[in-house]
Amino acid sequence: MSAPGAGAGDVTPVRLLLDVDPGHDDALAILTAAGLPGVEIAGITTVGGNQTLEKVTRNALAVATVAGLEGVVVAAGCDRPLVSGAVLTDSETHGASGLDGPVLPEPTVALDPRHGVDVIVETVMAAEPGTLTLVPTGPLTNVAAAVRREPAIAGRVAEVVLMGGGYTKGNVTPAAEFNIYTDPEAAHIVFTAPWRVTMVGLDLTHQALATPEVRERFAGMGTRAGDFVVDMLDFFGPAYLAKQGFASPPVHDVCALVRAVVPDIVRVRPGHVDVELHGQHTRGMTVTDLRGREGRDLDHLVATDLDVPRFWDLVTGAVARLP
Amino acid sequence: MSAPGAGAGDVTPVRLLLDVDPGHDDALAILTAAGLPGVEIAGITTVGGNQTLEKVTRNALAVATVAGLEGVVVAAGCDRPLVSGAVLTDSETHGASGLDGPVLPEPTVALDPRHGVDVIVETVMAAEPGTLTLVPTGPLTNVAAAVRREPAIAGRVAEVVLMGGGYTKGNVTPAAEFNIYTDPEAAHIVFTAPWRVTMVGLDLTHQALATPEVRERFAGMGTRAGDFVVDMLDFFGPAYLAKQGFASPPVHDVCALVRAVVPDIVRVRPGHVDVELHGQHTRGMTVTDLRGREGRDLDHLVATDLDVPRFWDLVTGAVARLP
Amino acid sequence: MSAPGAGAGDVTPVRLLLDVDPGHDDALAILTAAGLPGVEIAGITTVGGNQTLEKVTRNALAVATVAGLEGVVVAAGCDRPLVSGAVLTDSETHGASGLDGPVLPEPTVALDPRHGVDVIVETVMAAEPGTLTLVPTGPLTNVAAAVRREPAIAGRVAEVVLMGGGYTKGNVTPAAEFNIYTDPEAAHIVFTAPWRVTMVGLDLTHQALATPEVRERFAGMGTRAGDFVVDMLDFFGPAYLAKQGFASPPVHDVCALVRAVVPDIVRVRPGHVDVELHGQHTRGMTVTDLRGREGRDLDHLVATDLDVPRFWDLVTGAVARLP
Amino acid sequence: MSAPGAGAGDVTPVRLLLDVDPGHDDALAILTAAGLPGVEIAGITTVGGNQTLEKVTRNALAVATVAGLEGVVVAAGCDRPLVSGAVLTDSETHGASGLDGPVLPEPTVALDPRHGVDVIVETVMAAEPGTLTLVPTGPLTNVAAAVRREPAIAGRVAEVVLMGGGYTKGNVTPAAEFNIYTDPEAAHIVFTAPWRVTMVGLDLTHQALATPEVRERFAGMGTRAGDFVVDMLDFFGPAYLAKQGFASPPVHDVCALVRAVVPDIVRVRPGHVDVELHGQHTRGMTVTDLRGREGRDLDHLVATDLDVPRFWDLVTGAVARLP
Repeated sequence: MSAPGAGAGDVTPVRLLLDVDPGHDDALAILTAAGLPGVEIAGITTVGGNQTLEKVTRNALAVATVAGLEGVVVAAGCDRPLVSGAVLTDSETHGASGLDGPVLPEPTVALDPRHGVDVIVETVMAAEPGTLTLVPTGPLTNVAAAVRREPAIAGRVAEVVLMGGGYTKGNVTPAAEFNIYTDPEAAHIVFTAPWRVTMVGLDLTHQALATPEVRERFAGMGTRAGDFVVDMLDFFGPAYLAKQGFASPPVHDVCALVRAVVPDIVRVRPGHVDVELHGQHTRGMTVTDLRGREGRDLDHLVATDLDVPRFWDLVTGAVARLP
Repeated sequence: MSAPGAGAGDVTPVRLLLDVDPGHDDALAILTAAGLPGVEIAGITTVGGNQTLEKVTRNALAVATVAGLEGVVVAAGCDRPLVSGAVLTDSETHGASGLDGPVLPEPTVALDPRHGVDVIVETVMAAEPGTLTLVPTGPLTNVAAAVRREPAIAGRVAEVVLMGGGYTKGNVTPAAEFNIYTDPEAAHIVFTAPWRVTMVGLDLTHQALATPEVRERFAGMGTRAGDFVVDMLDFFGPAYLAKQGFASPPVHDVCALVRAVVPDIVRVRPGHVDVELHGQHTRGMTVTDLRGREGRDLDHLVATDLDVPRFWDLVTGAVARLP
Repeated sequence: MSAPGAGAGDVTPVRLLLDVDPGHDDALAILTAAGLPGVEIAGITTVGGNQTLEKVTRNALAVATVAGLEGVVVAAGCDRPLVSGAVLTDSETHGASGLDGPVLPEPTVALDPRHGVDVIVETVMAAEPGTLTLVPTGPLTNVAAAVRREPAIAGRVAEVVLMGGGYTKGNVTPAAEFNIYTDPEAAHIVFTAPWRVTMVGLDLTHQALATPEVRERFAGMGTRAGDFVVDMLDFFGPAYLAKQGFASPPVHDVCALVRAVVPDIVRVRPGHVDVELHGQHTRGMTVTDLRGREGRDLDHLVATDLDVPRFWDLVTGAVARLP
Repeated sequence: MSAPGAGAGDVTPVRLLLDVDPGHDDALAILTAAGLPGVEIAGITTVGGNQTLEKVTRNALAVATVAGLEGVVVAAGCDRPLVSGAVLTDSETHGASGLDGPVLPEPTVALDPRHGVDVIVETVMAAEPGTLTLVPTGPLTNVAAAVRREPAIAGRVAEVVLMGGGYTKGNVTPAAEFNIYTDPEAAHIVFTAPWRVTMVGLDLTHQALATPEVRERFAGMGTRAGDFVVDMLDFFGPAYLAKQGFASPPVHDVCALVRAVVPDIVRVRPGHVDVELHGQHTRGMTVTDLRGREGRDLDHLVATDLDVPRFWDLVTGAVARLP
């Protein structure tokens, strides 16, 4: 394993718009993005998911404050799934606040008064085509609403790199992962819009385990950000063990962020993804074809293999760079 | 039958926001609204449906011009259904333009640059609670997007009186009516939002037939608006005969407008409406319970009986009042 | 109204195989069939539905005894729906026994040891092609199993005249009628097999109301069978009022029997019927196309209008002929 | 790797009823069963699947002849799936005959005139409870029809060990395996009946690859049965390569047979299996829960790991024992 931060040399300058529902792993994704030299965060939008919109927005502002992201736009988006309207939160994994564990600072980052969906549309339309990557790590409600409100954004983003789904497993049900299950219709919209999606799903993210050794690397930083991560892991780890039976918790959302920044840390394969909207036992499943049968286009990318050492080097190196 | 216009005395002053996809019957609804003394049109928003958004918006501006609605906000909304994204038009019934028949004037009414969904939200939020009625007569995409973007509008509109659905029949399929079939998920959102919906569906609208006698009443006005209606009926009538086998065409959308303005012309019953999203043969059906079985609330109203003479008196009286 | 029995002169000699789940209206159908001179009952098979298979079989034997059907084959068929396996009974309408009201005689008709499905297959295959009509008045489990076991029966029966479904209404749900709702997959099999089905559904059967005047005609017979019917109606009427709000109860199953025997008492229209298997609110609905849209064949018949006076003349005349 | 036949010492005496649609891998399963000393074949029933019922029945008789199974009951069952009724064959994998490759001998085994479903019911009911194992390796139509016709068989078979489904993959679609996809409703019936099912699905069977080395073991036998297997593999291998991209073909059905005979060659885990009947992209999927979430019983067994050397030793040893 290389020294912390060594991997960061590979970061191509990149502009990201993060759409999040923090959530411990969203929070670590934001911190990682903030600490990577070549990464510009063009905005952070929030969506109801791991917790209510109100809570995840407060958490996003607090995490942005820890990350020193003063001046970055943070805006609240949709408060409930597109069609079902039923907010589905996950207090077991993320606690009553959505980010239990660390003491959250009083935010010094201000909330942008615009609707998160408008922030996505306006930021994409204002950017040069092909220069901005969307990184959604919550339910896809905001992104779906944005591409329906302004279909032209599909031709202007560089790519959508999302955390969600899986090609052999689910977690809310045997077939479906939380983000997709929460808003399947939004996911359907995102996977059928004319842009390239990279699906970073459970098959990939279950390789990104925050082991005790990883925790020690954060603990050894002796920084506010490092301690914040440790406090998060000390809640998230036991919660994940209790609910899902993992010895070490997977930091799902960070994997999408890393793929967007240093693509070769996350190996992908071409694939076609249909979101099941109508099944009795499969609603919210990302039905994934990696072989191109029955004339389906392999129009998207599906993450399959994680370079675990480089992943953690990049993440810990980034967090170590924060105050 | 009373003299043209006699029914108009019953019009309680009312503010309406029309969400339309003209379409011949939408056009007649706009003209009727424009000609009724007590009716204030707070705005007209358009939605892809009978034809593409571009065409129905142009038609709306032309009809507003015929109606003398200078100064009324007309804004374009969503161009495709919420989830499916597949625009489903009906050229057989409404022609290639969406309003074949009359020569459309060059619009003197200008298009508002705002998104139609924003116009709905802003108009409702700016109005006194309970003073504005939404009258959607196309697919419910705009209205659904509006109530998801700003859930508070549900508590502020007086009512939603929509043309769509049916409780014993469909027209696109044996089970589903065009507006609901085009965007079932939007309809689901509208019927589950916390406001009262009056469903004016096919069971009602098939009573509102523009017979030859009715056509003569428009023809006898000798006005631009009267002639415009005659030109519409001379296309719409044969088209409806050819496609659906009706001797005289039903003017669906006008029924919703009339219900919103003079409620007792359209008798209603309390009912519960579930929109079927998942059926193989029933997608887009408005499954209607008029009896309150299995604990379902009869939370909406379902139009059942039309007072045909008063209906046509009101409509012809209104059009007669236009230039 | 003509004198009791006058209509019976129209009965063309006909052989019927009754598949039943008695049930009050099934019982009256059996009695009617037994009392009509030209009708030969080739067999009676039972199916779980209004009550468990055990109960409806016992009821069938008792009713056959009242009807004097010694020598007629009575056999028990399937005890649960084909796919769901979940027996759905209706004690509210038919009581705990499935035939509450009359005192049931000790059966003198013996139960045939064969499986009901085999009786259907063997009876049909033994008959001259085109000479035997199936009259199912319960869930279609037996008939479906028979045509899957021996597909050749489809080409040999004269017709299937069934009680079930509806084209504008349901009774278990707003969309689905009890017999079809109980076993939708069996209904799908029956409606897609290559034979002609006449669907006698709720739209028709709600015209066949056992009014007080009708009851008096049975009461005036002064026979065991007449009294048996009166006892049935005195339970069935109040039960139907309590559950469904009918002032007089509809004798659904009798309508299918009468259609099979004197077709012109029940007017029909050509139609196509799809059974919805997958809907959330519409499972078990008979989606009926009476217009032949979208290339669907109008391959079946759908009952629409009942000649009420002739219906009751035929039924009361038949029962009056029993001991 | 041990010598051919070494594993056979582990075979506990067992009675099997094979329900098959040969099919190359079904044929090898039959040959293997015939060559194992402790195995008694109580009957072979056929079902439409890999090819039409007529063809797979002829193939079954030919294979039984090669295997020297004179005196064993072979009976034809259902010719089409329970509900859909649409026969779905796989000529690409198995050829136009369903068993392309070897020259099929004129059968010396006679076809039992009974219906296959009756053979299943009668054989199970005649056996001592708990002594007979059902091994279905085709669509589950016959088994489902049998347990619906005589529910008591569920309490009398020792176990159902079936080839079908998968917990991370499909082959006909990304979600569904051929046997289950062909008749999902039958599979639902089998997985919900009150017996224990061991699902030997694609995750397991893709470990049982007939490599060139395996082929050589059959070729080296110098027997009619060995040559028959070689001829099968010489068709099946290239067909599987062309259709599914496998370098060596998996002999799916043999895995179920082996599990039924020497359980510890196929490791299993407790699991719950729901068959998806209603999905748009997932119909026929075996949605498998290996963790017991949301209160689901882990009521069945799911095959996960194959002891490959012992598997092939057992199979080649068995075939080597045939003439």
